[in-house]
Amino acid sequence: MKAIRVLQLCFLWLLVSAILLKSADCHSWKKKLPKPCKNLVLYFHDIIYNGKNAENATSALVAAPEGANLTIMTGNNHFGNLAVFDDPITLDNNLHSPPVGRAQGFYFYDMKNTFSAWLGFTFVLNSTDHKGTITFNGADPILTKYRDISVVGGTGDFLMARGIATISTDSYEGDVYFRLRVNITLYKCY
Amino acid sequence: MKAIRVLQLCFLWLLVSAILLKSADCHSWKKKLPKPCKNLVLYFHDIIYNGKNAENATSALVAAPEGANLTIMTGNNHFGNLAVFDDPITLDNNLHSPPVGRAQGFYFYDMKNTFSAWLGFTFVLNSTDHKGTITFNGADPILTKYRDISVVGGTGDFLMARGIATISTDSYEGDVYFRLRVNITLYKCY
Amino acid sequence: MKAIRVLQLCFLWLLVSAILLKSADCHSWKKKLPKPCKNLVLYFHDIIYNGKNAENATSALVAAPEGANLTIMTGNNHFGNLAVFDDPITLDNNLHSPPVGRAQGFYFYDMKNTFSAWLGFTFVLNSTDHKGTITFNGADPILTKYRDISVVGGTGDFLMARGIATISTDSYEGDVYFRLRVNITLYKCY
Repeated sequence: MKAIRVLQLCFLWLLVSAILLKSADCHSWKKKLPKPCKNLVLYFHDIIYNGKNAENATSALVAAPEGANLTIMTGNNHFGNLAVFDDPITLDNNLHSPPVGRAQGFYFYDMKNTFSAWLGFTFVLNSTDHKGTITFNGADPILTKYRDISVVGGTGDFLMARGIATISTDSYEGDVYFRLRVNITLYKCY
Repeated sequence: MKAIRVLQLCFLWLLVSAILLKSADCHSWKKKLPKPCKNLVLYFHDIIYNGKNAENATSALVAAPEGANLTIMTGNNHFGNLAVFDDPITLDNNLHSPPVGRAQGFYFYDMKNTFSAWLGFTFVLNSTDHKGTITFNGADPILTKYRDISVVGGTGDFLMARGIATISTDSYEGDVYFRLRVNITLYKCY
Repeated sequence: MKAIRVLQLCFLWLLVSAILLKSADCHSWKKKLPKPCKNLVLYFHDIIYNGKNAENATSALVAAPEGANLTIMTGNNHFGNLAVFDDPITLDNNLHSPPVGRAQGFYFYDMKNTFSAWLGFTFVLNSTDHKGTITFNGADPILTKYRDISVVGGTGDFLMARGIATISTDSYEGDVYFRLRVNITLYKCY
């Protein structure tokens, strides 16, 4: 009689195991969102070259539509202006705080009827806390308070990172300076 | 005797479990392709600024090689022409259908001996069906009927999307208008 | 008595299974790095247009900061120069070896005080060994011997590839030619 109970127990376990295995399946149709494995809040500071600030500028226009020059942002909400940048990253919103890395990449304004940009850039981090890079791509509807862009890759501490960054404009001064707050949430870490 | 049979049964189960576990392993050398979790077919429409169509244009050349201007595509299969765009996305092939979002990004022609481009752009979708972004990167050998580019990220409904988009040129009119059909297949959804 | 031993054995197995299942969980906080599933070492060759080498050039400057032209690299470590390219890929370091594909994309120099670039490009491979594309994004601190950039996507044989590429400058000749060795390590293959 005891043997039969054991037999029943084993079959029960068979059932439970099968269900558990299914939930662990990597290839299921739709997956539950994993818990974030890393969260970083960083700021970066962009000082756009305007013909007079060569020493301080961290970015410069390098392309613009027909008829525009490269020291004055175009009308039409800067449509077509493309800048490359090498901006300091700080832990707080102070431009003069010790940088923990550089934000390097490009952005361009791509809407005629409102301020909107597209970003492709890499955070190159080199501090005691973080060594490695995170690369981002995505549309940036500047006038929206919080907008999400995609983490598309990473190296070093952020090898093959996956996730998003929530960007907000922390401050700006005309067409010369802006500061972005970047709240990075990674869902895959190695 | 029964007890021994139960013992055998348990060992058999041990074996089966081990095999199942191995197949569920996320870290195996080569994984079976998961089933697609989302499929979208969308069209986007690009009207290139040529100096005369400022009102209708949705894209503009902002860079070109030495000697070229930005209202006429270069010879050499447009080699070196870089455009930024903000194009309407529609569910069918009609430019005047109600847009379900915007395709925002850039492309450039990068071959001297044939028409070929490289694309970096984001679908910003904002309809009752889909809210979120999908970002794409990749080479676009324009004269090939169907060509695949990579989905490199996503936000909102497409958080951390992975997959490919199969692009085909649905129509074009000289150097002023083209319409791309984009068949997006996502293999990872959350 | 035997039946009780079997019972004990089953419970032991229950415990072991639970632990194994947990380690196979795809949604764990931090995952062990999977073993590489593909490794490729390839070279690509970039010949920059300088106004005199139209026939051989495989890349051209298409954007530069105010005041610069597009046949001479800017001072300031080429800050702001943006090039588009269609470069041959070879299996060894010989420019004249039969190409196995094309490296297509763009790079720009983005630091004023040292040589550093940002790359966005695709390896379009079409050989007996490999058919498909791999797309890369990332910062390239040129003067560092080995630097990692991100694999952000892939198609064909490299569908949804994930991993990194370790780049090293294999050779260069002034501002006209450079050759990069690219050691690609993929951790996800389908």
